[in-house]
Amino acid sequence: MWFLVDSCSASDHTLKHPGRHAPGKRRVGVCFVGEGAVNDCEDTRVSIAATALQRQIGIDLPIIQSPMAGVQGSALAIAVSNAGGLGSLPCAMLGIDAMREELEAIRAGTARPFNVNFFCHAQPAFDAVRESAWRRSLSDYYREFGIDPNEIPQGQGRRPFDAAAADALAEFAPPVLSFHFGLPSAELLARVRAWQPTVMASATTVDEARWLQDHGADVIIAQGAEAGGHRGMFLSNDVSTQIGTFALVPQIVGVVKLPVVAAGGIADARGVAAALALGAAGVQVGTAYLLCPEATTSAVHRAALQRESARNTALTNLFTGRPARGIVNRLMRERGPMSVAAPEFPLAGAALAPIRAKAEAAGNGDFSALWCGANASGCAEIPAAQLTRALLAHVPGYVDLPTEAG
Amino acid sequence: MWFLVDSCSASDHTLKHPGRHAPGKRRVGVCFVGEGAVNDCEDTRVSIAATALQRQIGIDLPIIQSPMAGVQGSALAIAVSNAGGLGSLPCAMLGIDAMREELEAIRAGTARPFNVNFFCHAQPAFDAVRESAWRRSLSDYYREFGIDPNEIPQGQGRRPFDAAAADALAEFAPPVLSFHFGLPSAELLARVRAWQPTVMASATTVDEARWLQDHGADVIIAQGAEAGGHRGMFLSNDVSTQIGTFALVPQIVGVVKLPVVAAGGIADARGVAAALALGAAGVQVGTAYLLCPEATTSAVHRAALQRESARNTALTNLFTGRPARGIVNRLMRERGPMSVAAPEFPLAGAALAPIRAKAEAAGNGDFSALWCGANASGCAEIPAAQLTRALLAHVPGYVDLPTEAG
Repeated sequence: MWFLVDSCSASDHTLKHPGRHAPGKRRVGVCFVGEGAVNDCEDTRVSIAATALQRQIGIDLPIIQSPMAGVQGSALAIAVSNAGGLGSLPCAMLGIDAMREELEAIRAGTARPFNVNFFCHAQPAFDAVRESAWRRSLSDYYREFGIDPNEIPQGQGRRPFDAAAADALAEFAPPVLSFHFGLPSAELLARVRAWQPTVMASATTVDEARWLQDHGADVIIAQGAEAGGHRGMFLSNDVSTQIGTFALVPQIVGVVKLPVVAAGGIADARGVAAALALGAAGVQVGTAYLLCPEATTSAVHRAALQRESARNTALTNLFTGRPARGIVNRLMRERGPMSVAAPEFPLAGAALAPIRAKAEAAGNGDFSALWCGANASGCAEIPAAQLTRALLAHVPGYVDLPTEAG
Repeated sequence: MWFLVDSCSASDHTLKHPGRHAPGKRRVGVCFVGEGAVNDCEDTRVSIAATALQRQIGIDLPIIQSPMAGVQGSALAIAVSNAGGLGSLPCAMLGIDAMREELEAIRAGTARPFNVNFFCHAQPAFDAVRESAWRRSLSDYYREFGIDPNEIPQGQGRRPFDAAAADALAEFAPPVLSFHFGLPSAELLARVRAWQPTVMASATTVDEARWLQDHGADVIIAQGAEAGGHRGMFLSNDVSTQIGTFALVPQIVGVVKLPVVAAGGIADARGVAAALALGAAGVQVGTAYLLCPEATTSAVHRAALQRESARNTALTNLFTGRPARGIVNRLMRERGPMSVAAPEFPLAGAALAPIRAKAEAAGNGDFSALWCGANASGCAEIPAAQLTRALLAHVPGYVDLPTEAG
């Protein structure tokens, strides 16, 4: 935190315990310097917390690209890592073989640190009664699109982190792992500790942040309610507990000793500077990358992101069974974004898959999960490396970054 | 915005159009200087947008104390205005005579600018069927507390701004007026324009901000979902449209030409710095003042704010009929915080009043509206002047402020 540190010199104490400075001490001076100006106290230009996080992970920039299952793979991760940030590979929708291929691509594409992300939900038992009630509730749509609901396969949806994934990971020894919906079991976590990765996990409340610290996370991702995609909530399923980034980040920084990464609503350099001001050691940015050529975002999703209506997002459980933020579309409007009828995560999606497929084939996203954060203003059709650097333009300590692609 | 301005010298152009700088120009240098250090480009230490807002209103600090009906009156407003911020008098729960007395107290207590706040809802017709259904739904509580529901008076609750209030205001000519739930009618607004006040109004979405700009507001208060008390929403009653401060502020700054004040989740100097980084010209802070001696916060409310459970807030319509953020208590837990049974704002409160009174008499806030933002970490039992100055400690341009009370 570049304006709450003790003094010009970053002591070991402040590096080891960002945000935990001795009371009574006062900052002496911090200079923010731009193009052409002279900087006379160089060692404090950067956020102390960000510097510590960068050293811990081995990255140049405190920018983590959010893992976004279904809309990106290795290409986006490689581009962001090569630009000096931390690229992420989401594995929740990949089988072991596909994951291995993607990891090989990353190893071939970059020598920089990268992150591999998994979901940690408990896979629910299939509930035939609930599933058939859910399908009945969608019968108007089946009729509209000429779909026989009896021919829809039962789907697995996302898969949780497991021993097979841990085994496959071991040979790649990814330097960073991140988890959503809590942490894997102590046994699984011990297994991945073998190659000493940095373990990050999402907290959506102060209680979750404390829990993650107590259960072995190295870095807390404070996921504010503005974030696109799935809420990482795991101690409660009450969405009224989900608060915005502005309130969540400083409260988590205030109670945990770990570095805190801010996520949710961060779309540009102003947002990055604000997050660092709130005490974050870095930021996780997802939505802004969705239009990059390296993302695999679908055509209907890309189109939706570019309309002004991308401002209208809501938390919805219709597409998977868990609350996630997406652009409001016809299904969300007609059913209400949150429904008690939706089967447990991740089973809700199977019944919608054929409707979505037919709608998307006709060029509409009325039944697609158009994941998007509450601030899509940073989306730009530019290479991910350029976007990554632009996120730090004008931010103290990073102002001299080149912003051209590369 | 202290790191996105054109150059060291604040031109008239940037002062008149904060956030609207000519493209292509680049910042040269901004120095943030603390205790004992030398500052060699003084004119850019402060946010350009904040400087413009301060000049427009005639205040020293870009801090607006949120008007909080029911928990504060003239004393808090006077203290904040005398400290250099903008104190606010909430009038939604005051009759004309009471309002006049409070305004006289403010005139006697400070020569500095102050703000007078009103609600702009349409008073609904009393609906006897809905009211009796609402009371029936509360019958268990009436029994528990020995209350005869037939003896509960029908209550008015909050009153909207009207001609009588405008007439009474004229003699005091308050320099700033702020409105919640939209703006008063064009006729009423023209009447108050007679004394040329600055007119502020709350926007909870980008659409509302545009609407307020088009309908005569001078300053937009971007009220993020973290804010305590009533959501100012007026173009929609769908709470899923309510997004966090981090996402709301930059998007509103991006589309309106007016100064934007950030509200919601701002509890300390880090929050103020972050809000300015996001492009806000100032901040509106409410919750942090609730424990100040000048506030009239009730004993049960003060106690609730000091418990760790103050972190658990939710939007609820149970207490008034409109969504407002408060600390989760027994009523909210047992009924769910949002209920379709609650009568229209502001009529829902009457049926609860005797239950709340009996509970509060026994020292519990189970049925009280414990308004509180999603970040109560800034609450402190210190004089409001001291709190106001502390909100700017370490913030660029304000670091030399004395922080002792006075």
